[in-house]
Amino acid sequence: MSHDRNLVLGAMLFYPGGEHITSWRLPGSEPADYLDIDYYKRFAQTAERGGFATIFIADELYVWDRFPSGIDHAVNIRTEPFTLLGALSQVTEKIGLAATVSTTYNEPYHVARKLASLDYLSEGRAAWNLVTSASDEEAWNFGRDANLDHSVRYRRGAEFVDVVKGLWDSWDDDAFLYDRESGSFARRDGLHVLDHHGEFFDVRGPLNIARPPQGHPVLFQAGASEAGRELAGATAEGVFTLSPDALGDAQDLYADYKRRATAHGRDPEGIKILPAVSPVIGETEQDALARLDEIEALTPDRISLDLLSHYLQTDLSDRPLDKTFDFEFDETSGNQSKSFYDSVRRLVGERSFTLRDLYRTILRRRFLPGTPETIADWLQERFENGAADGFMIAFSSVPRGVDQFVDEIVPELVRRGIYRTDYRGDTLRDNLGLPRPESSLRTGVTA
Amino acid sequence: MSHDRNLVLGAMLFYPGGEHITSWRLPGSEPADYLDIDYYKRFAQTAERGGFATIFIADELYVWDRFPSGIDHAVNIRTEPFTLLGALSQVTEKIGLAATVSTTYNEPYHVARKLASLDYLSEGRAAWNLVTSASDEEAWNFGRDANLDHSVRYRRGAEFVDVVKGLWDSWDDDAFLYDRESGSFARRDGLHVLDHHGEFFDVRGPLNIARPPQGHPVLFQAGASEAGRELAGATAEGVFTLSPDALGDAQDLYADYKRRATAHGRDPEGIKILPAVSPVIGETEQDALARLDEIEALTPDRISLDLLSHYLQTDLSDRPLDKTFDFEFDETSGNQSKSFYDSVRRLVGERSFTLRDLYRTILRRRFLPGTPETIADWLQERFENGAADGFMIAFSSVPRGVDQFVDEIVPELVRRGIYRTDYRGDTLRDNLGLPRPESSLRTGVTA
Repeated sequence: MSHDRNLVLGAMLFYPGGEHITSWRLPGSEPADYLDIDYYKRFAQTAERGGFATIFIADELYVWDRFPSGIDHAVNIRTEPFTLLGALSQVTEKIGLAATVSTTYNEPYHVARKLASLDYLSEGRAAWNLVTSASDEEAWNFGRDANLDHSVRYRRGAEFVDVVKGLWDSWDDDAFLYDRESGSFARRDGLHVLDHHGEFFDVRGPLNIARPPQGHPVLFQAGASEAGRELAGATAEGVFTLSPDALGDAQDLYADYKRRATAHGRDPEGIKILPAVSPVIGETEQDALARLDEIEALTPDRISLDLLSHYLQTDLSDRPLDKTFDFEFDETSGNQSKSFYDSVRRLVGERSFTLRDLYRTILRRRFLPGTPETIADWLQERFENGAADGFMIAFSSVPRGVDQFVDEIVPELVRRGIYRTDYRGDTLRDNLGLPRPESSLRTGVTA
Repeated sequence: MSHDRNLVLGAMLFYPGGEHITSWRLPGSEPADYLDIDYYKRFAQTAERGGFATIFIADELYVWDRFPSGIDHAVNIRTEPFTLLGALSQVTEKIGLAATVSTTYNEPYHVARKLASLDYLSEGRAAWNLVTSASDEEAWNFGRDANLDHSVRYRRGAEFVDVVKGLWDSWDDDAFLYDRESGSFARRDGLHVLDHHGEFFDVRGPLNIARPPQGHPVLFQAGASEAGRELAGATAEGVFTLSPDALGDAQDLYADYKRRATAHGRDPEGIKILPAVSPVIGETEQDALARLDEIEALTPDRISLDLLSHYLQTDLSDRPLDKTFDFEFDETSGNQSKSFYDSVRRLVGERSFTLRDLYRTILRRRFLPGTPETIADWLQERFENGAADGFMIAFSSVPRGVDQFVDEIVPELVRRGIYRTDYRGDTLRDNLGLPRPESSLRTGVTA
């Protein structure tokens, strides 16, 4: 591998206390500060010190109160990504700012505008993480009885991306004259009316903000289903993927996304494959495993079971925990998160599980326990063997896990010559090695 | 008047260069910086130095390209209010942050969440300016053929406010336990499901963020029509009103809002009446008038005429500019901005106008030319005679007009004992003298 190719890191935050639903109970957590900007400022500044390409704010549009355990034990409060990233744009210099956007419960005009605005406020560091929203709870907050079907959500998502990109190209990069003398603020031929009419959206445009510094803010996606991978292949510039246990499976997944991008006429270098990794860092392997045990011990059975009920869309609460788990999977189901549903189906197909075993297994396999060296080994192996262009780090605990990653694993990656903590450019695109897109609407002289 | 009653000032920004559509041409303007955070940072920090209670970001959801003159001469680019105010929350300490929200083209769940988030990021300084959106151009960007009818928009706006307030009350102020030991993050009985079903919205809730620091972020409105005044009387805490020329008319308007609030069972002190004022400051009266002439001279006839066509919803472009203006006003019309339509109708009823006279008159009466002393006289007279609780300053130029106001008029108001530049509290509510609302959903023990 060329030494010019550097591993890309993203700093993901879903639950404010860390990746797991009960991460907020771990030592060093600061649960009373989850709506305090200083908490996020520290997260972003630490990630920037570690040379992370971007922070990545995951999001959902509901309170998980389907089961009482969710109210008791889960962190159901979070800041809204765009206001948060607007604030963080002023206390960071180089790191990217990625906001999760549901294409099912938003309007493309608002989203195009917010991302363009964030791209200006941050001088070219904005990104979005397209999700289609998985839960009926979200539908209920937006006037619908139930979520859209999986395939409809993805068709809508694809059209949404087209509209947003078209809106960003409303004004040519050189449309503005600001000529006080003549009174000409903009050139008429530098403005384009999108006039989109599609299955889901009718949007005339133009957008009321200039073309963003990056042309188009960077697009991330996480879809792992067939429809999700296709959308990623067609449009994503960063894919936050599952992280299969076996290297071979990870290589297949990597190749699959690259192949789909190529099939869509895209440069496969233009889609960065970033498996999600949740390190649990210990001084020794034993110590790391003890910390993983601690995460499991702090997760009440009740919430594990209810989470599984949620994702399998079946109330499992009266099933015996310690008898063999018998479940009729439906190949056509999994409207919520098809990839999670299918992964449980595969797991249960491999061997027999009790219900308790099953949810513990699901919990534990989300994490990568190890020492800084063994975790760096794992990352390096995947990076150098066609299984990853980098990783989306879903810290098992915040702030401790972030500090540990930056202080212990980052130096190890740098030492191995596969990572740099300095930023090579000013924009997120520069730092990811992605070209600035041409406008789709520009006419006349070519750019 | 008691000296405890201090005049309230808001720093409004609609066009980034100042109140008028061609303010960007005025001396000292910085039109190439209209998407640069430093430009807005300076605006906010200057207003904060002058003790303004809030900055107030006006907004529209379209490019005004109905006439080519709009592309040529108008500033059609602006930052999105929430990302901008998120950024400004980190570079200001005390000043309020008010974002304009269209209740016609937004979903209450998103809006409740963004405002709550901004309220946390700013430690209690968030506010919203409810508008119902006036132009068909906005409808075309959100999948509609035409804007909703005026009365429907206001019914929707009223329901929108109810839903947003209900969502803010989803969690009791003391709902969170953060108890690492027991694993209890929140109390079940501290969470409330709104379950709203109305004419326009079906929103279950709960909101996925804690009750905002201010309870409810402050609500501003500007509606001047009958429906707009009723909505303000029922819900607004600050009203950004028209500013009639005659003191008597201003007193009537002031009394009307206060009366409507009382009729809705509200404390009339809980609704601050803030007429919009656009000072044009000169060293002498002559100098101020010369600056007003300059504003007029920098406004091409073409765009004035097209603006009038826009607001009267009639293409006036082939009418003779210098013959008597004859227009058939329709009492039931004015769907776009009913108050503007009606004000032109009243003006034309007063005397005969040529078209050129009419649009110049409309342009000039938006401004208050004077010296710092005469402008302070005018403000003081209105403030001390039941015509205003303060003023929303729509600076005729930015940044010059803001600097001038803070450096020349503010000291004059302080000298007169009707204004203070220090902030009396930490939240916008504190600084406006507004109480923190009780929760509408809290049950059990009373707060």
